[in-house]
Amino acid sequence: MTTLKPNAKTFPLNAWYAAAWDHEIQQALFPRTIAGKKIVLFRRKDGQVAALEDACWHRLVPLSKGHLKDDEVTCGYHGLKYNSHGRCTHMPSQETINPSAGVRTFPTHEQHRFVWVWTGDPALADPAKIPDLHWNHDPNWAGDGKVIHVKCDYRLVLDNLMDLTHETFVHSTTIGDDAVAESPFDVHHGEKTATVTRWMRDIVPPPFWGAQLGKPGRVDRWQIIRFEAPCTISIDVGVAPTGTGAPDGDRSQGVNGFVLNTVTPETETTCHYFWAFVRNYKLGEQLLTTKLREGVASIFREDELILEAQQQAIAENPDHVFYNLNIDAGAMWSRRIIDKMIAAETPPSHAAALGSRTAAAQ
Amino acid sequence: MTTLKPNAKTFPLNAWYAAAWDHEIQQALFPRTIAGKKIVLFRRKDGQVAALEDACWHRLVPLSKGHLKDDEVTCGYHGLKYNSHGRCTHMPSQETINPSAGVRTFPTHEQHRFVWVWTGDPALADPAKIPDLHWNHDPNWAGDGKVIHVKCDYRLVLDNLMDLTHETFVHSTTIGDDAVAESPFDVHHGEKTATVTRWMRDIVPPPFWGAQLGKPGRVDRWQIIRFEAPCTISIDVGVAPTGTGAPDGDRSQGVNGFVLNTVTPETETTCHYFWAFVRNYKLGEQLLTTKLREGVASIFREDELILEAQQQAIAENPDHVFYNLNIDAGAMWSRRIIDKMIAAETPPSHAAALGSRTAAAQ
Amino acid sequence: MTTLKPNAKTFPLNAWYAAAWDHEIQQALFPRTIAGKKIVLFRRKDGQVAALEDACWHRLVPLSKGHLKDDEVTCGYHGLKYNSHGRCTHMPSQETINPSAGVRTFPTHEQHRFVWVWTGDPALADPAKIPDLHWNHDPNWAGDGKVIHVKCDYRLVLDNLMDLTHETFVHSTTIGDDAVAESPFDVHHGEKTATVTRWMRDIVPPPFWGAQLGKPGRVDRWQIIRFEAPCTISIDVGVAPTGTGAPDGDRSQGVNGFVLNTVTPETETTCHYFWAFVRNYKLGEQLLTTKLREGVASIFREDELILEAQQQAIAENPDHVFYNLNIDAGAMWSRRIIDKMIAAETPPSHAAALGSRTAAAQ
Repeated sequence: MTTLKPNAKTFPLNAWYAAAWDHEIQQALFPRTIAGKKIVLFRRKDGQVAALEDACWHRLVPLSKGHLKDDEVTCGYHGLKYNSHGRCTHMPSQETINPSAGVRTFPTHEQHRFVWVWTGDPALADPAKIPDLHWNHDPNWAGDGKVIHVKCDYRLVLDNLMDLTHETFVHSTTIGDDAVAESPFDVHHGEKTATVTRWMRDIVPPPFWGAQLGKPGRVDRWQIIRFEAPCTISIDVGVAPTGTGAPDGDRSQGVNGFVLNTVTPETETTCHYFWAFVRNYKLGEQLLTTKLREGVASIFREDELILEAQQQAIAENPDHVFYNLNIDAGAMWSRRIIDKMIAAETPPSHAAALGSRTAAAQ
Repeated sequence: MTTLKPNAKTFPLNAWYAAAWDHEIQQALFPRTIAGKKIVLFRRKDGQVAALEDACWHRLVPLSKGHLKDDEVTCGYHGLKYNSHGRCTHMPSQETINPSAGVRTFPTHEQHRFVWVWTGDPALADPAKIPDLHWNHDPNWAGDGKVIHVKCDYRLVLDNLMDLTHETFVHSTTIGDDAVAESPFDVHHGEKTATVTRWMRDIVPPPFWGAQLGKPGRVDRWQIIRFEAPCTISIDVGVAPTGTGAPDGDRSQGVNGFVLNTVTPETETTCHYFWAFVRNYKLGEQLLTTKLREGVASIFREDELILEAQQQAIAENPDHVFYNLNIDAGAMWSRRIIDKMIAAETPPSHAAALGSRTAAAQ
Repeated sequence: MTTLKPNAKTFPLNAWYAAAWDHEIQQALFPRTIAGKKIVLFRRKDGQVAALEDACWHRLVPLSKGHLKDDEVTCGYHGLKYNSHGRCTHMPSQETINPSAGVRTFPTHEQHRFVWVWTGDPALADPAKIPDLHWNHDPNWAGDGKVIHVKCDYRLVLDNLMDLTHETFVHSTTIGDDAVAESPFDVHHGEKTATVTRWMRDIVPPPFWGAQLGKPGRVDRWQIIRFEAPCTISIDVGVAPTGTGAPDGDRSQGVNGFVLNTVTPETETTCHYFWAFVRNYKLGEQLLTTKLREGVASIFREDELILEAQQQAIAENPDHVFYNLNIDAGAMWSRRIIDKMIAAETPPSHAAALGSRTAAAQ
């Protein structure tokens, strides 16, 4: 397993990162740090989202402390103005404007209810590369989510999601039961994806899923975890009455949800974790949407405590070599794909410093 | 413009720095860090101010945690005593006192309602070099001020004061108006001083100055900013009815104030900012003195927010090269004079590391 | 005197350190950092105390955030289980357990109402080396104590205790009087111990001791400070009416107490300070036990302020060379013995870096 070596790069820059939920970006200055870049976002009058470097060209004062008017940002210190393309359009007491005067902008795209920002080479910013979270705005699915700030390397959140064994231990009072930790699973991977599939057949459903299904009796339960590089994971979850054919593809008698996750690195050791839970049943029940959202939120708070403790322990043991278990197979693939993306951006002279420290468990 | 390179020296030591308002120093131990030196100040029975290194010769415990009696400081740990010249006069259980036993003292001088401390070579500590803030104790002027602790390099406060263009943007609801940012200005400099002069002729006075003048009609407004190295700035401000001759030297029909500022570096990234506002009208109105002091205090809180955000941004971008605009001309001169003072104190081998990163704006 | 050089080792590992008061360790997970090691302690069903490294073998999550059941610790993340010998006994979804899977354990021993942990080579962990604090559980003595967390190198606490001169200055309103600072003292040392003996003959007792004795008149007062390496100090204190023979060995007319101290390094700059005050009179009076414990606690808070200020000053002056006075003789011996213990554990190549910076006072 790749270690969290201090100073080693932990995320690629040539990637679309979720910067905000769509509703977070209004016609107002909104600062957020994405992949180490301080960015100020705002919605233009035409509805497009602009993303500028959050530092005035002149004296570095954060532009987010200034004012927005008519799609232009005025720095709150000396009044330099920038348009939504980052070009300086006004300087105080200056007849001509330095042609170089401006701040960097970042490509943005709104999709799946999120505002995405591309932090790398703008020429490569193809919206087709935005990870698939379409369930989040598909009329056949209903649900909602949040964004939480977690004080850990975003990859620790991915590790957590790629192995749901932890449900049994971290979430023993809610969604976890022994079946998850005991059931076998398969792992597949592509160039940019890794998938962990676990079927728990003919089990007593855990309380949450029993209530969603609304029928008594044993069930087949599934968890299909799909990682899309560098930091998006959709988890296809659900139960169907045993014998109704779900494992063979007929889920018509069951209930199905998706846990949608995209974990944006803020710094090397902190992240913005965007998530939603959507379902394909009782679509119009807003009360259920709210209950599920708040329920998932309290489950994720349990993960947060563990993840922040783990981050702290890793920081205190920078040379620790990790052993991997079978349950880590999914996370190992996602880490490898991320490492490859980072290596592709790293000049050869630096690449040598980015070694992995791995040891295989028996 | 000189950058705030970490580890580069940012202030000279051979300078008089304001350590306290006169009323702050009583017959009691008063700790304050001045230009990186931890100092304990106290007023002797004869009224003179003593300034000792705030660390016991024996075990470094701050003397300011001890006791003052009869002009002697007793360390609060083992009871070593020091007189106001820093000489150890008593040690517990010790028959003779080590001749080297003592702590460093700093020259002090009380002037213009401030206690000044010289942090460099005591042989050079000539009170004639104390910067001119005489308005602060001149019977023809009345006013008051405060000291605030700002978490930024003291030079950022100086930059702020050397260019009042920022009034238009930072203080748009109080003293700022477009006239300041739009009016031309002149810059002059001497060996130890730099002056920025701005006249705004025939303008509608901003609300503050209209109220001070107490007459309707258009005015000529002036701002004459005078820097005296390394960290004192007096600003001659006022308005007079247009046509009464103020630009030509006859201010008799106007009102005049001085914003007095001396910004003492505490560390490389924090400072003690002493300021006062004094006026030459309605001298006996204590209510006006109080109102003006509190009004200026709330204006300076707006600057504080910007300056601390700027300091943080500079710390995060240590290699940033700053571009200078016309409005920075005054600040550039004050920086140059400070740099020269620092260079004069720096051994040649270190001087090479103290480069300036400057780029000129068109 | 040895300086607190950053990065120099400040404590030996081959030592018994008090990890907790006996009552602190129940059948529950109790985390505490001892000599730089993060440890989780718990009491087994058979009453023995187990001490395991507080980091899961798999992903470093602190085991203290998991669960204890039947003398086994389950990691709160992925459910790995460990027995009290640190051996992993269960892994999720894993048919065989990696033979290396386990966490380090530390020898423990319960004695004198404390739980002791050995942080070095387990082969050397002989309970006979536990420092002598037998008064703490001797039926002829009664008393109680506490543990406080102090933000300083544990050796600063030892310095403080080895020279009670400071009572006169730090504790002037409680136990201190001029007699302590003025009286002569003797210092003796062995291989692992150093003793400072001070008799104050024919003095007016300070208020505390006058009250304990319960008789008017002058007294002989003693303070016999005994250091036992690396961090335990017992102080034999008391008074007896002058002329009743206490200095010659007959304390039968007096009152006697012991201040028991053992100061466990947590990190290089923080410590757990365990202390108790026990007496050989009015053994059954619980009210007196409580009053004395709380009285001593408030005295130690005065020391805490001084020690933390001293630690900060030392950290800011890493190259400071300390001068020693006569009163430092006891502390110098304890420091030398500690230095020798550390040197014995240090490979020769590192030993050169561990110099002492000492200067003798006249």
